[in-house]
Amino acid sequence: MEIERRSGIKCYERSIENVLSSVLVTSDFWKIVKDSEEVLVLVSDIINVLEEKGYLEETNGKISLTDKGKQLIESMKLYEKTSFECDSCEGRGISIEEHKDLLKEFMRYHEKRPKPIRKYDQGFVTPSTTIARISFMMEKGDLGGKRIIVLGDDDLVSIAAALSGYPKEIAVIEIDSRITDFISKAAKEIGFDIQIHERDLREPLPSELVGRFHTFFTDPPETLKALQLFIGRGITSLIGERCSGYFGLTRVEASLEKWREIQRILLDDFKVVITDIIRSFNKYMNWDYIKETKAWNKSTKWIPEDIWYTSYLYRIETLSGTKSRNERVDEDIYQDVESSTS
Amino acid sequence: MEIERRSGIKCYERSIENVLSSVLVTSDFWKIVKDSEEVLVLVSDIINVLEEKGYLEETNGKISLTDKGKQLIESMKLYEKTSFECDSCEGRGISIEEHKDLLKEFMRYHEKRPKPIRKYDQGFVTPSTTIARISFMMEKGDLGGKRIIVLGDDDLVSIAAALSGYPKEIAVIEIDSRITDFISKAAKEIGFDIQIHERDLREPLPSELVGRFHTFFTDPPETLKALQLFIGRGITSLIGERCSGYFGLTRVEASLEKWREIQRILLDDFKVVITDIIRSFNKYMNWDYIKETKAWNKSTKWIPEDIWYTSYLYRIETLSGTKSRNERVDEDIYQDVESSTS
Repeated sequence: MEIERRSGIKCYERSIENVLSSVLVTSDFWKIVKDSEEVLVLVSDIINVLEEKGYLEETNGKISLTDKGKQLIESMKLYEKTSFECDSCEGRGISIEEHKDLLKEFMRYHEKRPKPIRKYDQGFVTPSTTIARISFMMEKGDLGGKRIIVLGDDDLVSIAAALSGYPKEIAVIEIDSRITDFISKAAKEIGFDIQIHERDLREPLPSELVGRFHTFFTDPPETLKALQLFIGRGITSLIGERCSGYFGLTRVEASLEKWREIQRILLDDFKVVITDIIRSFNKYMNWDYIKETKAWNKSTKWIPEDIWYTSYLYRIETLSGTKSRNERVDEDIYQDVESSTS
Repeated sequence: MEIERRSGIKCYERSIENVLSSVLVTSDFWKIVKDSEEVLVLVSDIINVLEEKGYLEETNGKISLTDKGKQLIESMKLYEKTSFECDSCEGRGISIEEHKDLLKEFMRYHEKRPKPIRKYDQGFVTPSTTIARISFMMEKGDLGGKRIIVLGDDDLVSIAAALSGYPKEIAVIEIDSRITDFISKAAKEIGFDIQIHERDLREPLPSELVGRFHTFFTDPPETLKALQLFIGRGITSLIGERCSGYFGLTRVEASLEKWREIQRILLDDFKVVITDIIRSFNKYMNWDYIKETKAWNKSTKWIPEDIWYTSYLYRIETLSGTKSRNERVDEDIYQDVESSTS
């Protein structure tokens, strides 16, 4: 149908329903994307088509239902998309109360950190997200006394981990020299010997990083190629069975079709098990280059006022039979039809 | 090795580590099972072997480290298994604040409900778990104005859903006439026409329940056969694409090997996508027939003082290409080597 033709992304009846249920709660494009849990590019095309058909209207960058739209919603018996996210833990289920001091120390680095740049699809999470990651990894037994590697670290997870004092060893692979410099300086201040490898993850892992770690953490661009590459490198870095890996995945730039495909790859190709998928765990700060992105062009050109870009946190575990991948990749890994923020 | 020979369940080094990290925090068998996230039968065999080897000792049903055990933990550099579960939402990330009145109304039924019996592997969740399920389904857009079916309802989800007034239609399939009678009486009191089908899920779904619902909820016994059967029936009951299903899965009676296999079945056979896996979502009340179970025999024979049996909540969604199953099953679905509570 018309919407699919425009976006190139599968549009279900439920996709339209999710957008309309969200418009019942907010007139803000970014919040509609967040609440509807549909791919941004698709949300934009759904809104445009519903506008053309007279169900929605846009005034000063705000989206609302027309009378015809209200009738439609009445006839569909749609309910508002209501969030029941717990305030105390921001919906993660993980308390950071016991890591309050860690958060304070981490803030000192967070405030001085290099700004995200578009070239590497950067964009970083809130400090409380980072500390919640540390708390969760600690709860799972993946951090205390363990060797951990961070694959791409614009969130500065390595600095928070070093400040916590929990891990036995921390390594970072990062392509951006502004970030490796920053982490290197921080590591000296903290007095934790973070091993920093400034390199491109498309290159195979060097032998000293293969089969060495208990835990990896990564937050890849959301094309299938990038997900496969980053997670494959992560598994390659692990010692063997019952080691763990963490990565983020949004609904903003990854459709449920893509989710299914990445899950199939995890199960069938890598033969790992998924132990946790926690919604809205990773909350991203708004970033400066938003106006240069496709997301902006597809939006109502109204600067986001609140956090709107969030991702699910996946945790996987290796088992007997788990397979990894370490071959070179030469292609572009940053863009597909569902991408919008890079 | 010795432990695997006894339990028939794969024992990793990490399994032993998880048990020992938990013994650092508690001497209570049931809490060790909960914290270690290893299969109960395996935990029991690990403890026994570690006792025989002089690392652990048991006094009056309480488990503790011997001096030799303390040295071992020192040399392994093990950290305590610490939980950072959020108190406000009991670690689910979902607040039930806005459904306080619903919880109160539900309690009136909860207090009068039939006791769980062993024959059907019953055991029910806390009332706040049930209300959190309602809140979560509501947030996901799976309940308001929708048709929902509950496959096996000893948790009385149907009563909570009816009290909420959210769904358009509620159906229940339940084998135990004590429960169907109870729900039927409650439905009349509430004035919500819950369709009750007293039948065995091993029988195929009758045609009037096939392809009718938007959402299913089920909490199967944890053998692969039962999981496959209940989820297959659930998917069969759904209308089509972008409908959802919910089910629970423990680590107490399901190893990560079993988790991987059930995930493979979801992805490869049913071709659904997993959207959420939320730890410790379902918290089970302690039940009377515990002393008749294998779990009791494998335990230190000390009555559980706290909630210890919890499960992860899975949410799945159907997509284009999803397949279902509705054939008859004749085998025993209640027992496998990892089972202990039925």
